[in-house]
Amino acid sequence: MKTTRLEAFSDGVLAIIITIMVLELKVPHSVELAALKPILPVFLSYVLSFIYLGIYWNNHHHMFQAAGQVSGGILWANLHLLFWLSLFPFTTGWIGENHLASIPTAAYGFVLLMAAIAYYILQRAIIGREGRDSLLALAIGKDWKGKLSPVLYLIAIPLAFVNSWIASGLYAFVAFLWLIPDPRIERELEKREE
Amino acid sequence: MKTTRLEAFSDGVLAIIITIMVLELKVPHSVELAALKPILPVFLSYVLSFIYLGIYWNNHHHMFQAAGQVSGGILWANLHLLFWLSLFPFTTGWIGENHLASIPTAAYGFVLLMAAIAYYILQRAIIGREGRDSLLALAIGKDWKGKLSPVLYLIAIPLAFVNSWIASGLYAFVAFLWLIPDPRIERELEKREE
Amino acid sequence: MKTTRLEAFSDGVLAIIITIMVLELKVPHSVELAALKPILPVFLSYVLSFIYLGIYWNNHHHMFQAAGQVSGGILWANLHLLFWLSLFPFTTGWIGENHLASIPTAAYGFVLLMAAIAYYILQRAIIGREGRDSLLALAIGKDWKGKLSPVLYLIAIPLAFVNSWIASGLYAFVAFLWLIPDPRIERELEKREE
Amino acid sequence: MKTTRLEAFSDGVLAIIITIMVLELKVPHSVELAALKPILPVFLSYVLSFIYLGIYWNNHHHMFQAAGQVSGGILWANLHLLFWLSLFPFTTGWIGENHLASIPTAAYGFVLLMAAIAYYILQRAIIGREGRDSLLALAIGKDWKGKLSPVLYLIAIPLAFVNSWIASGLYAFVAFLWLIPDPRIERELEKREE
Repeated sequence: MKTTRLEAFSDGVLAIIITIMVLELKVPHSVELAALKPILPVFLSYVLSFIYLGIYWNNHHHMFQAAGQVSGGILWANLHLLFWLSLFPFTTGWIGENHLASIPTAAYGFVLLMAAIAYYILQRAIIGREGRDSLLALAIGKDWKGKLSPVLYLIAIPLAFVNSWIASGLYAFVAFLWLIPDPRIERELEKREE
Repeated sequence: MKTTRLEAFSDGVLAIIITIMVLELKVPHSVELAALKPILPVFLSYVLSFIYLGIYWNNHHHMFQAAGQVSGGILWANLHLLFWLSLFPFTTGWIGENHLASIPTAAYGFVLLMAAIAYYILQRAIIGREGRDSLLALAIGKDWKGKLSPVLYLIAIPLAFVNSWIASGLYAFVAFLWLIPDPRIERELEKREE
Repeated sequence: MKTTRLEAFSDGVLAIIITIMVLELKVPHSVELAALKPILPVFLSYVLSFIYLGIYWNNHHHMFQAAGQVSGGILWANLHLLFWLSLFPFTTGWIGENHLASIPTAAYGFVLLMAAIAYYILQRAIIGREGRDSLLALAIGKDWKGKLSPVLYLIAIPLAFVNSWIASGLYAFVAFLWLIPDPRIERELEKREE
Repeated sequence: MKTTRLEAFSDGVLAIIITIMVLELKVPHSVELAALKPILPVFLSYVLSFIYLGIYWNNHHHMFQAAGQVSGGILWANLHLLFWLSLFPFTTGWIGENHLASIPTAAYGFVLLMAAIAYYILQRAIIGREGRDSLLALAIGKDWKGKLSPVLYLIAIPLAFVNSWIASGLYAFVAFLWLIPDPRIERELEKREE
């Protein structure tokens, strides 16, 4: 089984998740600039989630370029990842509507954590099929970003109960770490072509 | 007519159905953990429906890999399947919002039943075109899963009026039966390539 | 410019329109069977619109298989068609929520009429580029279905103010006329291949 | 990395944005023709935004046909453009619901402005990779449309506080300027093929 249809389906789901989040930005009935103020935190959480979903799409894209074939296990690992990503609009709306209250902030981090774990499982499933010497395995290498992110989420979640701004700052920091698209796979791909 | 555009359209519809369901998880206005409690049944029914749609996508994917060409009949059999799948968000929301009340639980089972029948019709339509000796016909074989599932739904629907937990357990059990992606078609495909 | 991306975009829009309509089926808060009764007309109008969108997708699919290249005019004629189709969820919800009241029934017919005209314009634009001897021009021939449908809509719209059941019956009858996927283009395509 | 998956993802997001806007057209509970009157401004702003998104899809399509490969920078410049386009349903709903009040009209223009800037950045990123003698660079030439549009938006935004009809007229005028799909790239593509 080829990766094309899996990629197309994942693209579809990611495109919908990223766009559906905007429905949480409820159209204000007032026409004054002040009407935008309560929307501001929703907007900021929308921006952060948009960036996160962009990162996932980017890395997903890179990962499957390095993958040759898809097995049943990879299909389900991919659906598992999409499941957690599909909860982004929910936690984004909750965190935004409550001005970074503790529980929604922690819930946001929990979904981030589960998505990171699901991504890791998917990566393992692909490497398991492709082999330890495969393009993807070499490209990922020690994968310090993939290993550091869940640790930072785990630190941020309890911190949400102390100060939710610090927790949110940590979420944004992890996004920043990933923002640079993974040059490892691109580099390995270029090497191969030489 | 090739299968690509039919697959792309089906992928699009399935991707949207699977993602739109999350809109039933209404963002709670409260910020306490207790606010998540009324969402729990909606969440559980969301998980079950997500798994079901994942199974349908998986099997649909496998089926059309074994199909060569698409006729008008197959197009409409496919749209008929998509129609019943498109009702998943509705019954999922209803079952979740009412903590497994009898009627919504039975309605959920009815949509599952109709989708299973629609899938069976689609399968017949493809085999009818491909022939009894086709890859798909051989791969499916006796199709005990496809025949057992509607029977289990038919048993579960009246049981919803006795105890909706048993009915829901049966729905989950059928999903579990299908969770293992169908190795029959993969096996036949590999045989052919040899 | 090739037709693939235009087809992919149209598929995306059609897939979303067809799926978004289900959001008009509001989850009832009651758990009794009677709770489904007010949803019934919404459901019936959903079924009719689902069939109509299926027909449009089918015919669109056939038409672009016979089209070679896409010009700027065809792109905009296609967007114009998608615009009217995107109003289906709105008129479907309105007709369904008001048990076939006159104005919503007439509005439903108006959108059907405009979509039919938009489809006709798109067809003309493609034939204009492909030429009078092209596959599509030959396949369509006299196009009596394409010419009869707007006439029937024009008859049905004023009838909605007399008896909205007759008008709705006419809408369903036109759908029935089209339900059989257009064998003309398939026939011509097969001839060419010989 | 090829452009196909980026185009497919962008198509998905644009298809969803264009379709989700129709959800702002709330189904009226009344059945009289007068019920459509409050929907009229929402409808008009829907038409304008539909045309704008059609223009963006068209130009995006043309631009990536002239682009060979995609870098990480281009991926993010594209996501940045999609971000601003994803705010169209929000500002469209707001402007429509308030009959062209000043602040929503200005906000609508601001999102138009940011999208135009994001498009310009994306174009620069592609030309930066493809080179100054590339197909795209030659095709775009002086790009007076791309440079005039942000200026007109900048004029229209403060005008929204004087007379929101003039501002809206300017938005519509810019759309009109772009409506003719960019013949420059098509011409260059044809030249190359000769």
